[in-house]
Amino acid sequence: MIAALHRPRDCTAGLLLAGATWFCALPAAEPAPASPAVREITALLATQAAAWNRGEIDGFMQAYAQTDDLRFASGGDVTYGWRQTRARYQQRYADKAAMGTLSFSDLVVTELAPDAALVFGHWQLIREKDAPHGLFTLTLKKTLVGWRIIHDHTSSAP
Amino acid sequence: MIAALHRPRDCTAGLLLAGATWFCALPAAEPAPASPAVREITALLATQAAAWNRGEIDGFMQAYAQTDDLRFASGGDVTYGWRQTRARYQQRYADKAAMGTLSFSDLVVTELAPDAALVFGHWQLIREKDAPHGLFTLTLKKTLVGWRIIHDHTSSAP
Repeated sequence: MIAALHRPRDCTAGLLLAGATWFCALPAAEPAPASPAVREITALLATQAAAWNRGEIDGFMQAYAQTDDLRFASGGDVTYGWRQTRARYQQRYADKAAMGTLSFSDLVVTELAPDAALVFGHWQLIREKDAPHGLFTLTLKKTLVGWRIIHDHTSSAP
Repeated sequence: MIAALHRPRDCTAGLLLAGATWFCALPAAEPAPASPAVREITALLATQAAAWNRGEIDGFMQAYAQTDDLRFASGGDVTYGWRQTRARYQQRYADKAAMGTLSFSDLVVTELAPDAALVFGHWQLIREKDAPHGLFTLTLKKTLVGWRIIHDHTSSAP
């Protein structure tokens, strides 16, 4: 979705500005600026991870659509509904030690329509005694209150 | 996406036609007919499973977009590209015994846009010695040759 653009270069400016000679010396190919949707979704997930890392499951849950249609799939289990998904997280991650430190990486946001997007990425928890990790696929819809996850499929590395 | 419609009822006809009294005796709520997209996607997956059950991985692979952007996620591993995904299947399911009998169930097709859809469902393999099962999330795009899977996230029940 994001085309590589060759950034206009000014070698004179590059040579004059400390640290800017890179633009002159190397072939430059930079991705186009992210679209508003990609920026908003990326920010939503960063906010979500930050809430988790403060131990705030309710804050983490704000990224999910607050509907009974929310679907959360993990391993062989499916949870339907926002409240039920929150309850699942509350049960499994009862305290800050269980929650650990969450990070997302290698995020790829694909815009499927003006109001629909796919996000794929890696998740990792760093905890005192283990470091589980895996993959997630999110489907998001643009709602009246912004982009929200309507479907989450998560898997863990064995 | 599919609204429940009350089917017009004719109790006289219902009483006259053997097996049709159900329409008269019970409150009837039937889903609206599936859209062309839902029908085409459902047929694609049925064709895909049938190819698998004939031991034909190449036929099974026809449901996937033949691009290097195809993404297949399972557990903690990601495979990119149609050829690589086919190679993964060929390695893991080297013969008919390993392939077993595949079935999909509880399929839910969500139309995200005229050319994009989400499919969620359960998969099960019946083999001589085991019966692995789990969940899958597919993202499909409508291409020049019909609907094709561009992203597959599969997980197994422990």
